[in-house]
Amino acid sequence: MEKLRVELGERSYDIRIGNETLDGIGENLKTFGLSPKVALVSNPTVFSLYGERVRGAIRKAGFDSVTVIIPDGEEYKDLLRLEQIFNELLTHRLDRESALIALGGGVIGDITGFAASTYMRGISCIQVPTTLLAQVDSSVGGKTGVNHKLGKNMIGTFWQPGLVWIDVATLKTLPKRELLAGLAEVIKYGVIYDGELFEFLEVNRDRILNLDSGALTHIIKRSCAIKADVVSKDERESGLRAILNYGHTVGHAIETVTGYTRFLHGEGVAIGMHLEARLARILGFIDGAGVSRIRALIDSYGLPLEMPSDIDVHGILSSMQLDKKAVAGELKFVLPEGIGRVRIEKAVPEEAIRESLWS
Amino acid sequence: MEKLRVELGERSYDIRIGNETLDGIGENLKTFGLSPKVALVSNPTVFSLYGERVRGAIRKAGFDSVTVIIPDGEEYKDLLRLEQIFNELLTHRLDRESALIALGGGVIGDITGFAASTYMRGISCIQVPTTLLAQVDSSVGGKTGVNHKLGKNMIGTFWQPGLVWIDVATLKTLPKRELLAGLAEVIKYGVIYDGELFEFLEVNRDRILNLDSGALTHIIKRSCAIKADVVSKDERESGLRAILNYGHTVGHAIETVTGYTRFLHGEGVAIGMHLEARLARILGFIDGAGVSRIRALIDSYGLPLEMPSDIDVHGILSSMQLDKKAVAGELKFVLPEGIGRVRIEKAVPEEAIRESLWS
Repeated sequence: MEKLRVELGERSYDIRIGNETLDGIGENLKTFGLSPKVALVSNPTVFSLYGERVRGAIRKAGFDSVTVIIPDGEEYKDLLRLEQIFNELLTHRLDRESALIALGGGVIGDITGFAASTYMRGISCIQVPTTLLAQVDSSVGGKTGVNHKLGKNMIGTFWQPGLVWIDVATLKTLPKRELLAGLAEVIKYGVIYDGELFEFLEVNRDRILNLDSGALTHIIKRSCAIKADVVSKDERESGLRAILNYGHTVGHAIETVTGYTRFLHGEGVAIGMHLEARLARILGFIDGAGVSRIRALIDSYGLPLEMPSDIDVHGILSSMQLDKKAVAGELKFVLPEGIGRVRIEKAVPEEAIRESLWS
Repeated sequence: MEKLRVELGERSYDIRIGNETLDGIGENLKTFGLSPKVALVSNPTVFSLYGERVRGAIRKAGFDSVTVIIPDGEEYKDLLRLEQIFNELLTHRLDRESALIALGGGVIGDITGFAASTYMRGISCIQVPTTLLAQVDSSVGGKTGVNHKLGKNMIGTFWQPGLVWIDVATLKTLPKRELLAGLAEVIKYGVIYDGELFEFLEVNRDRILNLDSGALTHIIKRSCAIKADVVSKDERESGLRAILNYGHTVGHAIETVTGYTRFLHGEGVAIGMHLEARLARILGFIDGAGVSRIRALIDSYGLPLEMPSDIDVHGILSSMQLDKKAVAGELKFVLPEGIGRVRIEKAVPEEAIRESLWS
């Protein structure tokens, strides 16, 4: 089993990556000094696939578990479902030494992390991500939250998990479309930080799409290591961490104006990476060859590239201004200068943005 | 103006205590490097008394303010009103550099602090407490939260304010009953930490009840200093901070079983302090003279002492077990050993508790 450490002082934690390792989670929980009750939060799909295995592992390690099932989908990541989690935790009397275990994708991880950070002013959260997106991104770094009708992840906290437990074998049951969406974030790490990872993705496309566990472990470990490194240097996103938002300024806006139902997060990010690379080209930060390579890699994994023609320009611009990364209405972008290197650009002219979005 | 510093590393902040100082708040805000928009959260009663003065001070300092009014009362400190705050913040596009200003008592302070800690994963909160309870207790220390039907403050965070601004003149408009309830917490500080403060309360009863600004400033400053000292040593309540809960194990349970409407928080705490002192006597930690002095001081301020006879024993015990300070159902109490000194006692026998509650 591979192991990474996210260094954050007293909030440091491990990421464990392996193949067919769900049964080992219970024994690992024991080292945390938790009280006997834990809550497993999942969705119907993931729970039907892995719930009993995880519950069995927890039970065998001596814990009593409560299960909370949240419906599938980003549209359920809201305050209403959060309250549902609290109801269960309080009814079953989980206490300050209890832990929540998030078994699922980013929605489950985000809402469970948020619940853990606010239940009795904060209890432990163990992330067991079962989608590629959650494995390489949302389970690591401590961002938690729920959506609001006026914007994605507008309500949340920074709350580091106690442990991230990644079993790459869970990707076998992941729908292809979600796998590809997760790969968008892996491509992102290549563009912003690691030319070698970018090249690995170019060369090993077939192994990855065939779910070769060695190739998956490699890209997941590398992605987590980059995220861990960035988060260690800037836990609360006051500087460097912003580079992780490459593709996200446009991506979030697309998700928001389409109501979170038309595009998966990674698909929005794929379009966002392409259009933001084009913006970088318009502003003269990257050459045409760089944009072409980014475009080609996104395309080779079957991800979308262009803003759909039916999406309204005003909606996108207005949504970007409301994004929580925007300060006083100024639009900030993370823009590639090449493969493996980005810059943060504040106050990008609206004209250049318009040109990049619809060209 | 008196000034205290709460030492918490990068989360350190000032408490300013003065008489007739609301007009000075705007100038002080300027030093925080905030974006031009701030939100003022208050309730109808407090806003009608002081809202325009505070808004004027904010405006004069160059800020644009949004006002959010939450109905009066503990029963509105819930997830529904929290969402109402988020709606306003998002509609008016407050960003990560904006601040919330809590103008009111503990309810406003707690829910506003919680909103600040979770809006866009955390923005600044300025506490302007207008009740004695909020001035000596809830505005200092960073505990935020809302209630759940299954328990008080079950959902919340630790989120330190950026500044606490106390104007003792606001106590002139505070209903007498609320003033007395606030004094229960001041008495608490005397019992747990400071024999001199306890004696000051015994000797200066009339000055305090006549709202002498010198006497009020003294007891508020001393209370805040004690709280600041305890919080600095134990921000997240893993040890010492628990002593602040003297009177609260029983007090919270009384509030919970009576649905937060019959007793003010401080009244519950007054009964709790008396009954927990009696428990300390039963367990042999304090002598009879100590209990009598505590009882007499609480009584001299017109605060309640006994558990009302119509309250059900099972409800109280069950509620105490669900309290977030309880771990794995074990009941923990903060018990006085004399005036100015307490001990934390875990696993107190239920028999002794029953005897102390109804004797």
